[in-house]
Amino acid sequence: MLAATGRLTDLICGTDAMNAVWSPHATVQAMLDVEAALARASAAHGVIPSSAVGAIEAACRADAIDARALMTGAAAGGNLAIPLVKLLTAVVKNADAEAAKYVHWGATSQDIIDTGTVLQLRAALDLVDADLRDLCAALADQARKYRTTPMMGRTWLQQALPITLGLKFAQWLDALTRHRERLAMLRSRALALQFGGAAGTLASLRDKAQGVAQTLADELSLALPALPWHTERDRIAETASCFGMLIGTLGKMARDISLSMQTEVGELAEPAAAGKGGSSTMPHKRNPVGCAAVLTAATRAPGLVATVFAGMLQEHERALGGWQAEWEALPELARLAGGALAHMKTIVADIEVNTGRLAANLDATRGLVLGEAVMLALGDRIGRLDAHKLVERASKEAVASGRTLFDVLGADATVMQHLSTDQLKQLLDPANYAGCAQAFIDAALELHHANA
Amino acid sequence: MLAATGRLTDLICGTDAMNAVWSPHATVQAMLDVEAALARASAAHGVIPSSAVGAIEAACRADAIDARALMTGAAAGGNLAIPLVKLLTAVVKNADAEAAKYVHWGATSQDIIDTGTVLQLRAALDLVDADLRDLCAALADQARKYRTTPMMGRTWLQQALPITLGLKFAQWLDALTRHRERLAMLRSRALALQFGGAAGTLASLRDKAQGVAQTLADELSLALPALPWHTERDRIAETASCFGMLIGTLGKMARDISLSMQTEVGELAEPAAAGKGGSSTMPHKRNPVGCAAVLTAATRAPGLVATVFAGMLQEHERALGGWQAEWEALPELARLAGGALAHMKTIVADIEVNTGRLAANLDATRGLVLGEAVMLALGDRIGRLDAHKLVERASKEAVASGRTLFDVLGADATVMQHLSTDQLKQLLDPANYAGCAQAFIDAALELHHANA
Amino acid sequence: MLAATGRLTDLICGTDAMNAVWSPHATVQAMLDVEAALARASAAHGVIPSSAVGAIEAACRADAIDARALMTGAAAGGNLAIPLVKLLTAVVKNADAEAAKYVHWGATSQDIIDTGTVLQLRAALDLVDADLRDLCAALADQARKYRTTPMMGRTWLQQALPITLGLKFAQWLDALTRHRERLAMLRSRALALQFGGAAGTLASLRDKAQGVAQTLADELSLALPALPWHTERDRIAETASCFGMLIGTLGKMARDISLSMQTEVGELAEPAAAGKGGSSTMPHKRNPVGCAAVLTAATRAPGLVATVFAGMLQEHERALGGWQAEWEALPELARLAGGALAHMKTIVADIEVNTGRLAANLDATRGLVLGEAVMLALGDRIGRLDAHKLVERASKEAVASGRTLFDVLGADATVMQHLSTDQLKQLLDPANYAGCAQAFIDAALELHHANA
Amino acid sequence: MLAATGRLTDLICGTDAMNAVWSPHATVQAMLDVEAALARASAAHGVIPSSAVGAIEAACRADAIDARALMTGAAAGGNLAIPLVKLLTAVVKNADAEAAKYVHWGATSQDIIDTGTVLQLRAALDLVDADLRDLCAALADQARKYRTTPMMGRTWLQQALPITLGLKFAQWLDALTRHRERLAMLRSRALALQFGGAAGTLASLRDKAQGVAQTLADELSLALPALPWHTERDRIAETASCFGMLIGTLGKMARDISLSMQTEVGELAEPAAAGKGGSSTMPHKRNPVGCAAVLTAATRAPGLVATVFAGMLQEHERALGGWQAEWEALPELARLAGGALAHMKTIVADIEVNTGRLAANLDATRGLVLGEAVMLALGDRIGRLDAHKLVERASKEAVASGRTLFDVLGADATVMQHLSTDQLKQLLDPANYAGCAQAFIDAALELHHANA
Repeated sequence: MLAATGRLTDLICGTDAMNAVWSPHATVQAMLDVEAALARASAAHGVIPSSAVGAIEAACRADAIDARALMTGAAAGGNLAIPLVKLLTAVVKNADAEAAKYVHWGATSQDIIDTGTVLQLRAALDLVDADLRDLCAALADQARKYRTTPMMGRTWLQQALPITLGLKFAQWLDALTRHRERLAMLRSRALALQFGGAAGTLASLRDKAQGVAQTLADELSLALPALPWHTERDRIAETASCFGMLIGTLGKMARDISLSMQTEVGELAEPAAAGKGGSSTMPHKRNPVGCAAVLTAATRAPGLVATVFAGMLQEHERALGGWQAEWEALPELARLAGGALAHMKTIVADIEVNTGRLAANLDATRGLVLGEAVMLALGDRIGRLDAHKLVERASKEAVASGRTLFDVLGADATVMQHLSTDQLKQLLDPANYAGCAQAFIDAALELHHANA
Repeated sequence: MLAATGRLTDLICGTDAMNAVWSPHATVQAMLDVEAALARASAAHGVIPSSAVGAIEAACRADAIDARALMTGAAAGGNLAIPLVKLLTAVVKNADAEAAKYVHWGATSQDIIDTGTVLQLRAALDLVDADLRDLCAALADQARKYRTTPMMGRTWLQQALPITLGLKFAQWLDALTRHRERLAMLRSRALALQFGGAAGTLASLRDKAQGVAQTLADELSLALPALPWHTERDRIAETASCFGMLIGTLGKMARDISLSMQTEVGELAEPAAAGKGGSSTMPHKRNPVGCAAVLTAATRAPGLVATVFAGMLQEHERALGGWQAEWEALPELARLAGGALAHMKTIVADIEVNTGRLAANLDATRGLVLGEAVMLALGDRIGRLDAHKLVERASKEAVASGRTLFDVLGADATVMQHLSTDQLKQLLDPANYAGCAQAFIDAALELHHANA
Repeated sequence: MLAATGRLTDLICGTDAMNAVWSPHATVQAMLDVEAALARASAAHGVIPSSAVGAIEAACRADAIDARALMTGAAAGGNLAIPLVKLLTAVVKNADAEAAKYVHWGATSQDIIDTGTVLQLRAALDLVDADLRDLCAALADQARKYRTTPMMGRTWLQQALPITLGLKFAQWLDALTRHRERLAMLRSRALALQFGGAAGTLASLRDKAQGVAQTLADELSLALPALPWHTERDRIAETASCFGMLIGTLGKMARDISLSMQTEVGELAEPAAAGKGGSSTMPHKRNPVGCAAVLTAATRAPGLVATVFAGMLQEHERALGGWQAEWEALPELARLAGGALAHMKTIVADIEVNTGRLAANLDATRGLVLGEAVMLALGDRIGRLDAHKLVERASKEAVASGRTLFDVLGADATVMQHLSTDQLKQLLDPANYAGCAQAFIDAALELHHANA
Repeated sequence: MLAATGRLTDLICGTDAMNAVWSPHATVQAMLDVEAALARASAAHGVIPSSAVGAIEAACRADAIDARALMTGAAAGGNLAIPLVKLLTAVVKNADAEAAKYVHWGATSQDIIDTGTVLQLRAALDLVDADLRDLCAALADQARKYRTTPMMGRTWLQQALPITLGLKFAQWLDALTRHRERLAMLRSRALALQFGGAAGTLASLRDKAQGVAQTLADELSLALPALPWHTERDRIAETASCFGMLIGTLGKMARDISLSMQTEVGELAEPAAAGKGGSSTMPHKRNPVGCAAVLTAATRAPGLVATVFAGMLQEHERALGGWQAEWEALPELARLAGGALAHMKTIVADIEVNTGRLAANLDATRGLVLGEAVMLALGDRIGRLDAHKLVERASKEAVASGRTLFDVLGADATVMQHLSTDQLKQLLDPANYAGCAQAFIDAALELHHANA
């Protein structure tokens, strides 16, 4: 038995829950849910007889549809709804020939496909929201836990100045908090009914059109938009973009963590799990398997977002090509976002922190990275320029001689005239030169709590 | 003399105003504006002497900077701010050697470049907002003007059912109204100060850090974010995405208009302008020059958005590659959005509508496209199934014989038993089968006015 | 029962044959084919006992592998080969515990996955080559058949000057002939064995390494590359690019054909097929269903190519993220190329040509598009400048009065002084103003035959 | 004075030479070179008077063209050639009114723009070829120099098994050798004349068309294609793709080098240069400025390639949007390829190798990475299974106790029964476990020399 999606690699980057949202079965069921709701809405306004509703509703089960016939019909008709309506009508007809006449009344293929997709999107957004909330909570916990743990800050992949590990968590949290804002706003725009009929005017429903549309939206708990959006795809593009941006932020986290897991760095590690990333013959090796999955998603997302954006140029009232290009790209982005989130949630919740390596790496340059701190303190006493020259000279000497900056400065008469050994030690302690780290962590936590 | 951007084609897809926002001169000036504001903010908190501010501010003029030296220095240092600070310091030093010591105090290159970009973005968004407001107003006018003008609706590039020209304008307006919402939300997130110093902790500013940051944000009228965002690029990605989505909608409009301008369709035309799109030897030809520019922007935008998204995977505290990839991609998107908007504003404001061709095209199938209207009316009288069969048979007969559907149906005894000639004529009039067009137009206008 | 790929829409843009090449079953079988060949090659060089080969070969059947266990294991290990080797070993062990020790000897996961993919690629290229050959043959036939059929040439979507329909087919043929060249060159580079062991040195095979590698390549009929290419992905990128470019050319054809199928143009039509693109209620409508599938492929291909290119930045000896991003993108491109080709082959072979509409559209401007022909002929007699003025004036008069250019010019004394009525008629016949069309068609056919 | 391109950042990722190829001046000159050659070719076939050639040729100097007027005209006409021909004609007219009548005879705008671009492409390919040849030569030198220098091989960013530094250079060389093959093949297809007149038939040149085309191709030393390729853009797409793939390989090299430059790894470093990448206050820091430029190019290239591919869907005989999208994307790719190559050439030629850190990193796991070598040797004596268990146990013990694998194994009775201390030492020497490194280096060098 294959996974829901039928692709072997879908569990590497995806999750069972998100794959299930976009499975063939769920896709067909979402369209059938729209057909059933349409029957109820149409009957409520007298467009079709109430007596037809029961048989149509009863037939709207994905299990009743022959997937292979659906696919073959889709190849001929160019979309799934055309053969689905035929197959559904046949099922209804078996039970109630009269009711079969009222299947799909007033709708066009795209109404069913788009609204079905919106229903799936809602389920996908529910999953994303829940995992994102959990991930943010985990990050907030870690930011608090490691708020004062000194860590080397790195720019251009070079050691720069100290930060704290908690600050790193807080920075990620801050970005994800903004994504939560965006996803909330997205829902208000994207979860909208599509219902326009053949040319977007609902002409065949005559004076009942708006009533049916409103009831249909209510039935499905979707917003009723000002007008159909068959070829105005900004809602879909925004959805793709929100997934893509979220994946980008998760990818940045995975990049950082996988760099921190390098044998030569060894500060962080994905939580160990049975059969995950280890190697029996190489016990020193801990492969960043979860990060790799997130980085895969992040490598794929930009091209998928570009595809959806490129598809926006849709001709006239219903298009050819641009719309159809969404069918794989949008679910794929949802799946990748869901999978990347799930991986990152697991990683962050139980991330292994090697405080020994954090400290050792802070010490790798024998104090050079703290030169600025000494320079500032000395600057207060002997002037910034002289302090700068003094520390610069001492740094070069430390590099040349292989001594620590503490040793070189401690042997400098000028320095010792103005600073005690203890003061010098304090200045060269990375824990004392993390700047606004605490305030920044507080600010990120505050926004997180306001949003939670 | 070249245009601001130095690229020959920049006036085809761009505008002078938007090109100016992103010119080399404006780019340098924006960074210098940040340096000047930083001097003021630092002095306000006693970080640098107040006496240094005047000389620094006076030197912060782009004209004073040697662009060629800037570029050569950028090649060596990897970004513009490193050489700019050197060149600026030299200029200040000429006037006030003491003040020169306090240039760029506490900031890192990326603080200056990012905040400078945000200032340019604000100017770009101002231009976009203004043109978008004008374009929406023009669309609202056209939607009202042509609200009842019948037009052929087309799906799959085939004639389908009638709409009205006003509805087409209203659909475009509706999408653009959502873009205005998005751009408004974007401002609240994207127009944020970047200020973190070497590793994002503002360590070198010690206890003055947060005060300086707040004052710097105030000086530049930017939001002060919870923490620096050197490697959290979701703000930039969202900006790229908003431009890209807007361009996508404009591209859809350009696609529709250029299709409508085809010699064989001839319904719409870009306004004629001296030397624009005409041909002396081919007087029948009216090239959609403005639409081509918009379509060019729409072809380029997805790749540029993807570039910015791909760049989000930025390493640790400051990155290499991902950040730098934004430098051309983001301004390019702004330029394309600005240019596409300007073109579309011009096109919509004075679009030529050929009502003769609109009517002729509605009649091209000799009434077949209105068969559904007759079928529904007959269905009320003889049952939907019989009506469907009757109209289907009549349509085939009309195709086979080359007669109009009116003639074929008018000669059918069953039809004439239930419908008068006048009723049949009414049913076959496209103006009477535009469904909810009026209600949809009203809804789009209402949202537009609520937003305006 | 679902299609091989498990995705409902895969038959719209894909083919059964190409989907089968990339099905989960075929993917697993390709990897197992590599494992079996590895056992044979290793035994041939005495690396593993010959007695182990039979049991390993016998177990290398995809049917024997539990797909769900494979996926779950892949999620933990990060790729398919890690769990596949475990599952395969278990199957072998059931039959021959001793042989089970020699499964996968000396190889790394990526060796199996990459070489398996190359085997699938070869099958995909075989399908593409065959369909491309057929398509080119069909285009050559059509180019010959319609070599002199006049057709309106269009630039900027406006009528310009006449061409012939055969020339249009020849232009497409010419581009596809270049693609055949590229695909032939691609094979020589891309169909290469991947075999390097854990770090690409084959160290664990000691002095037998090169012998085993050569025999393995021979067993699989693949080229033995100079060295393993675990993180040098130019072969894969070139493959993606060749598929993407081919899809681009097919997309251009689909764009042209779908534009020609517009109700208002009506020159070409996809061949009619039962249940394909027609509409019972709108008999005038012939949806370009095949073109839509090709255009969908063409909208998706650029993003997929970009994904593979973005994935080229692979770290050190084996990478995380970039490699894995190929797993969906590359098969998808192959599938889209195969599907687009199959659609276009069907369309071109039986394309419907409406010669009446071709002629009517040539006449739509009442001769204006032929003004240049008259101008040139008159220019020989009265000078180019005077001829230009005369024809320009006549064209404007024709536009203003609604008369044909023939009538206006035929009433002009200067014209009639130099040209007979019959000469004028000849000049205004589009069949006489197709320039080098015949020579161009011949040149394209010649290259086609040289390549066939 | 600005750089040729007018963009401030163009020297970070680009080179003066490549920027000059695509400067506004060079772009205009290339188009004028085509106009001059066209005049000569037309005169050679008696299409225009020979007396007109001199004045036209004399006027075909970019200096004579007002760039601002060109840009303004381009905005109105939609491309550069329309206003350029007008401005050129005016210049010719000043000198020779009669000659001015024969400017641009028989050509269409796109003929001039495309052929001008091809001329620029040829110059760009010359630069790329030369730098690529130099880079390959430098890599071959380094591969020979460091062929036996042991280095840690890394997979998943984790230490795996030893390689040699020379092998790393050889792998890069091997990929670049394939790019040289591709670029050579590209020239044969891409450097082709574009000449088709208004609708691609050269109709206005009547019986002289093919003669003029051949002479024009000869004049410009370009291939004469079978037919014009106005809307068949596979040549351009292949060019974009070749640049993009080359950048991808260079990006992989930059990724590896920048990872190797990390403070915690420190094995390789970009050559030091005045003012490049250093920091006065942080002497330990050596920013990978060149690698960052290459990585920037590699982040941008996929989106630009996708843009050119997306632009392939060009309508009918000349298109709107798709063609114009190439104008920035293609030169940008050439510039990025040229810049990335130049950076990498400089880096590779003088790369700093820290052999101490190479050795130290090989020793970081205290021998664990060589466990496989011991296991194989023991396996020959005590059976693979027992050897595997023994080494696995010893490895775990080494990790737990912090001892070296040499110490743990040296204290194991079974091991010492089969191996001498010296043999054990040899087995644990990374230099002795680089597998086929030497053979692979030889193979790469051989292909390089065959290609050079």
